[in-house]
Amino acid sequence: MDMEKKTFRSGPYKDFFAQGVQAGNVLYLAGQVGMDGSGAVSKDIVKQADQAYRNIREVLKEFGATMDNVVDETWFVTDISEIMANAEPIFSARAACYGGVPEVSQTLVQVSGLVMPELKIEIKCIAHL
Amino acid sequence: MDMEKKTFRSGPYKDFFAQGVQAGNVLYLAGQVGMDGSGAVSKDIVKQADQAYRNIREVLKEFGATMDNVVDETWFVTDISEIMANAEPIFSARAACYGGVPEVSQTLVQVSGLVMPELKIEIKCIAHL
Amino acid sequence: MDMEKKTFRSGPYKDFFAQGVQAGNVLYLAGQVGMDGSGAVSKDIVKQADQAYRNIREVLKEFGATMDNVVDETWFVTDISEIMANAEPIFSARAACYGGVPEVSQTLVQVSGLVMPELKIEIKCIAHL
Repeated sequence: MDMEKKTFRSGPYKDFFAQGVQAGNVLYLAGQVGMDGSGAVSKDIVKQADQAYRNIREVLKEFGATMDNVVDETWFVTDISEIMANAEPIFSARAACYGGVPEVSQTLVQVSGLVMPELKIEIKCIAHL
Repeated sequence: MDMEKKTFRSGPYKDFFAQGVQAGNVLYLAGQVGMDGSGAVSKDIVKQADQAYRNIREVLKEFGATMDNVVDETWFVTDISEIMANAEPIFSARAACYGGVPEVSQTLVQVSGLVMPELKIEIKCIAHL
Repeated sequence: MDMEKKTFRSGPYKDFFAQGVQAGNVLYLAGQVGMDGSGAVSKDIVKQADQAYRNIREVLKEFGATMDNVVDETWFVTDISEIMANAEPIFSARAACYGGVPEVSQTLVQVSGLVMPELKIEIKCIAHL
């Protein structure tokens, strides 16, 4: 095989999948959720979204990348109406993490569940390096 | 950062994300729905699917691309049984938009909601230029 | 158009989409489910996951690729609690198909339905060649 992969593993599922895989100049990130390093998950959707972006930034850092490298986001959320009702603080937290208006495409869908019942949002990103 | 992005922004969410982001020769499109330029959404699943493809074609055009450049589709729909019951006209409208049998992979899942209650389908595409 | 695509078509939907599309060195696979060549679908989630991976491997083979080429997985499942309750045999079957610990990112979401009522899991993969 000619293709070379670089991977970063972390967290409770590190034996099952990587948080990020780089092939060539494309970096695929595992879906990131609003859980901090201690395993805590806030009940607040704004804090969950903010923490998910912080986690994305941490994974990017392992590849020498920043939020500027993100090109595509898919948001899987459990309650779109809650997202819409909190759109302003959520998108403000996101803009703060990106350091401005992000140059990304985005897709938003409501799913019937995430990997833990308390999770309200999971964000899957693709970055180019 | 070495990576260069080209983006196209349009519509009510243009301050939050782009409808398309090109990095290298890969073009990521935001999920497209069956809303026309006036903001109208048909109740008819066939018309929604047709309009979503027209919107995809418009985004592609901004990058000098056509439907031939699409390589991957993910369909997020709210009622798979309605898709199946209308598969023939939906896929005919799609074939008309592609101008023939498309050379794309496809994934179809039923989600519990899209960004507006009246939406029945959202199509996320990746294109290569 | 400069871009060249290579596609592989198979199965009942081959007139509508390809099971795999390669553009440059990126290979997009259609979501694979736990249906075998005869059309049979097991009621057992472990067997469905195992069959989905066997189907992924078959598609890869058509492009001269192996499981080592997979970089990203999205799991769309109908019951996350059933996945969690069967995580050990499911991930063992997956490891057997990969031939070890896979170097992939993964996203897992629960959707409200898949293309046939008896399906419990659909896996969408991206590979680099």
